[in-house]
Amino acid sequence: MKKYTARLEFQVRDYECDMQGVVNNAVYQHYLEHARHEFLKTLGIDFAELTRRGINLVVVRAELDYKASLTSGDRFWVGTRLERISPVRFAFMQDIYREPDLKLALSGKVIGTALNERGRPKMPDEIARLLAAGEGMELVVPE
Amino acid sequence: MKKYTARLEFQVRDYECDMQGVVNNAVYQHYLEHARHEFLKTLGIDFAELTRRGINLVVVRAELDYKASLTSGDRFWVGTRLERISPVRFAFMQDIYREPDLKLALSGKVIGTALNERGRPKMPDEIARLLAAGEGMELVVPE
Amino acid sequence: MKKYTARLEFQVRDYECDMQGVVNNAVYQHYLEHARHEFLKTLGIDFAELTRRGINLVVVRAELDYKASLTSGDRFWVGTRLERISPVRFAFMQDIYREPDLKLALSGKVIGTALNERGRPKMPDEIARLLAAGEGMELVVPE
Amino acid sequence: MKKYTARLEFQVRDYECDMQGVVNNAVYQHYLEHARHEFLKTLGIDFAELTRRGINLVVVRAELDYKASLTSGDRFWVGTRLERISPVRFAFMQDIYREPDLKLALSGKVIGTALNERGRPKMPDEIARLLAAGEGMELVVPE
Repeated sequence: MKKYTARLEFQVRDYECDMQGVVNNAVYQHYLEHARHEFLKTLGIDFAELTRRGINLVVVRAELDYKASLTSGDRFWVGTRLERISPVRFAFMQDIYREPDLKLALSGKVIGTALNERGRPKMPDEIARLLAAGEGMELVVPE
Repeated sequence: MKKYTARLEFQVRDYECDMQGVVNNAVYQHYLEHARHEFLKTLGIDFAELTRRGINLVVVRAELDYKASLTSGDRFWVGTRLERISPVRFAFMQDIYREPDLKLALSGKVIGTALNERGRPKMPDEIARLLAAGEGMELVVPE
Repeated sequence: MKKYTARLEFQVRDYECDMQGVVNNAVYQHYLEHARHEFLKTLGIDFAELTRRGINLVVVRAELDYKASLTSGDRFWVGTRLERISPVRFAFMQDIYREPDLKLALSGKVIGTALNERGRPKMPDEIARLLAAGEGMELVVPE
Repeated sequence: MKKYTARLEFQVRDYECDMQGVVNNAVYQHYLEHARHEFLKTLGIDFAELTRRGINLVVVRAELDYKASLTSGDRFWVGTRLERISPVRFAFMQDIYREPDLKLALSGKVIGTALNERGRPKMPDEIARLLAAGEGMELVVPE
């Protein structure tokens, strides 16, 4: 299993399932977003507060490999690891594992940047520093 | 501009926007899904009816390039083109253009397959034939 | 059938259906919200623009009677009628009818107010005037 | 404060907030639904399993009083209490309290019934017995 810097536990809620009886594809992006925002908080980056200050962290690309479906009541966790890929871009490597069998449900790569108030990519120094710290954080080995 | 076999018109609804005031990333997957299902209907493939019969069309991979944000009230359309990429896999090339300036908002590639009732990839012949027809359909050149 | 001042057409999208194969209860609130915001636009009230100006139109109470389920592909419309119920409160009487049989799917009453930047109920005069116009609008008799 | 039979903890996720920066009205119905389904599980009633067996638990009416907005990162809990109101109808009294100040965010009453496969109200005896047990359960006094 890969290593992650952060790990967040979830449980599927029934309203997240669609007519196939499994979690709808779009909902996984919600899981990943929530895991990213919680991870960012541990680095001292508050997505909502940045938004209020006019700094918008945005996703520019998402690659999502759907490996196995999650369904009603499933417990799972999202593992997140951060990689800087350019001066203004960072990648979140994010995978979703079902509990308790650790079956890989989704493997994702989500690339983000920061936009200033005029919508131009611009990574504020304070954010860059905090993200750099996140990249260097000790890795969590999931049990 | 690329060519598409199908084109579906939408308008952003306010509840689809998040605290940044723009359409949330996950919602674009909803737009793409709806455009795919409507396109499939024109080929004679009804997603809901297949689901009731135990044939599950599923997404195995999505690649989404977010190019520009959509916001409250924006009109846009989704262009869809189908490509067979293996005996059991097909790709939907899907792009989202804002109206009236035709600004590219999102460029996506969504790969799907069919699962039988035991969850194994299995493309029923009738679906394969209908999809093959979709691949050969005359292309729509958007105005 | 009751009379409405506005009527907005929709079609159920597959992602709006849950594991029961019908539109999830919460989604009807999205339909009603979208119908209200479109109706308000015809009165000259733009929800998103008000939000940016710090005037928040909010719901204080919703009563929703679920009469019949909508499912994949169903066409329907939302009828909306406005009633002023106090100097700072207005009620939207909103019903959802399935097409083409005009079966009543949901009957709702949604009460709203406006909050100023400190979160206190405060109906700006311009909004009050526009809403009063909406109350007096000629009624639409659905065919 | 009122008494409840069940209490479920949540935290607001950023994607649940709309352009006003607060949790969208419809999302509260998701919170209430999840709290009901988790409560039902403690009674031995599994919503998803019933659905697969063709027994649909459905909402027939919801009354929702929005008291205060929840926003990014807020922790809150849903208190749920069950009341039988007719041979085929039961009411869930559900309130949402923000943590740690116990500010009431929403007060709701959600009335449900069971439908058989032909869509007729029909409360199976086993469900009726389990619900009756839930009505009589010892009440939780929130700290």
